[in-house]
Amino acid sequence: MNFSDRLARAILEKKNPSVLGLDPRLEYIPESIKTKAFGKYSCPFEAAGKCITEFNIRLIDAVCDIIPAVKPQLAYYEMYGPEGIKAFNETVRYAREKNMIVIVDGKRNDIGTTCEAYSSAYLGKIRIDGREKPVFDADALTVNGYLGSDGIKPFIKACEEDGKGIFVLVKTSNPSSGEFQDLKLEDGRTVYEAMADMVSEWGGTTVGVCGYSSVGAVVGATYPEQLNILRKRMPKSWILVPGYGAQGGKGADVVHAFDENGLGAVVNASRSLMCAYKLDRWKEEFTAEDFEQAARLEAQRMKEEIGQLIFK
Amino acid sequence: MNFSDRLARAILEKKNPSVLGLDPRLEYIPESIKTKAFGKYSCPFEAAGKCITEFNIRLIDAVCDIIPAVKPQLAYYEMYGPEGIKAFNETVRYAREKNMIVIVDGKRNDIGTTCEAYSSAYLGKIRIDGREKPVFDADALTVNGYLGSDGIKPFIKACEEDGKGIFVLVKTSNPSSGEFQDLKLEDGRTVYEAMADMVSEWGGTTVGVCGYSSVGAVVGATYPEQLNILRKRMPKSWILVPGYGAQGGKGADVVHAFDENGLGAVVNASRSLMCAYKLDRWKEEFTAEDFEQAARLEAQRMKEEIGQLIFK
Repeated sequence: MNFSDRLARAILEKKNPSVLGLDPRLEYIPESIKTKAFGKYSCPFEAAGKCITEFNIRLIDAVCDIIPAVKPQLAYYEMYGPEGIKAFNETVRYAREKNMIVIVDGKRNDIGTTCEAYSSAYLGKIRIDGREKPVFDADALTVNGYLGSDGIKPFIKACEEDGKGIFVLVKTSNPSSGEFQDLKLEDGRTVYEAMADMVSEWGGTTVGVCGYSSVGAVVGATYPEQLNILRKRMPKSWILVPGYGAQGGKGADVVHAFDENGLGAVVNASRSLMCAYKLDRWKEEFTAEDFEQAARLEAQRMKEEIGQLIFK
Repeated sequence: MNFSDRLARAILEKKNPSVLGLDPRLEYIPESIKTKAFGKYSCPFEAAGKCITEFNIRLIDAVCDIIPAVKPQLAYYEMYGPEGIKAFNETVRYAREKNMIVIVDGKRNDIGTTCEAYSSAYLGKIRIDGREKPVFDADALTVNGYLGSDGIKPFIKACEEDGKGIFVLVKTSNPSSGEFQDLKLEDGRTVYEAMADMVSEWGGTTVGVCGYSSVGAVVGATYPEQLNILRKRMPKSWILVPGYGAQGGKGADVVHAFDENGLGAVVNASRSLMCAYKLDRWKEEFTAEDFEQAARLEAQRMKEEIGQLIFK
């Protein structure tokens, strides 16, 4: 089944378009996990990797019956070196075991055989010792389209042939995203609209039964007006919406990303789920040691907040 | 010393602005290395990582008195999973031991704390178990500026505080780079010129004694006309020029990237050095087993070809 239809099915099964962002930082992780790992492993990178793996696995266990997808952010694993990448690998594997869709947030971009190497690493297989082997084997990857088709086509091949997906950066959630993305072209479009039009074109070959393509877009919840415009401009593209929760985006800001069936978008929350125990609404009740219970309650609350707006 | 001045010194010491691109693929590596590694390690990923490490180390040994810098391309290491990242780590460490400048080609891009995480991973240090520790500890990183200042400032901090450098994608070497980068803005600039102007601005705080900033740009050798225009538009930015050799760029194509002292640019060659033994000019004399001798001769030839055009 293609990625787009798998994503649609996962959302409808759980009546929830939320994504658990897994951007683990050591300071989010309870002391009990850290004391154990740093006591056991003399290499601090190895200990950090073990902490992250345990934290992620327990978060996944806490919410996997509520939330259909996870989005590990590669930077937070790369920062712990090879041991961090091991933790990333374990996290992807565990989330897939729990039937969650895995969207790797790497914003990768390159050309030709280098782009193929990224595609093989995250979505496809590599040829090694005479056999084809998957490497990280995620379901989807975020990518950056600045390099044009040469930087996207190898990923589209993985969408077409291996049932994988990509999300191309269109309008990002950060305050300064307009410096470049809002520049006006002579044909009247903005830079982000030009990117959106390329995304629509790139998605042409992978439209699923659900009506959406396996080539999606990233549009921040912090720009609800543009989200509305881009929803209409890319009618067949899944939109991955970051910026909900800690970055300020709310349910009402993301509602325009969805169609009348509650499909067409997924909404990522990272810190507000990983560190739900720090939120005003939960901090009286929980500490870091209770991160799982707090994450579960916040996941349920987020599901209800978005669900009541999009599933009628 | 800041990155820009370190780079200038390394180039002038060797009278050579070449960069050895380390984009290792198993098919480039001689059978003798592969037979040994796949015989010794039962995990094929571990064996692949060992092959890559040995190939890179021997290449570095073969050319490190001729070439001042290496540019490992992360995709080719990520495709072998955590074992590939170990090989990357060993490669960076070895190149630095040999006093080569290490430019990591990762085209990373993200915002806020995620961008900080990439910066810590490749350029800076992380805080772990109460201490500051470097992770990969390269000299410079390629980055993608699509996200605006939020996606660049954490890297500039590493340039300012830790003597590191970045190269921002401006006009890439691939055939389809124009699809997006050549779009015209209403103010008359192209998209790549708008990016170039941002690069100039971002570089303002890190201009070294040599007159160049630690915030450089990537402009492909395959677009000599634009390279010429961009050289003038970013007078204080180092230009990293990929696309020499296997992608078709020649000495005459890159000459406009340099100033009258032979500074201002570095020229990367990957396949034409790693696989010099396959080039028409060397293939009669060498096989894959002789990759080091062929690489050394080709490195010398490239140095002379570019050197006679830029060092007067």
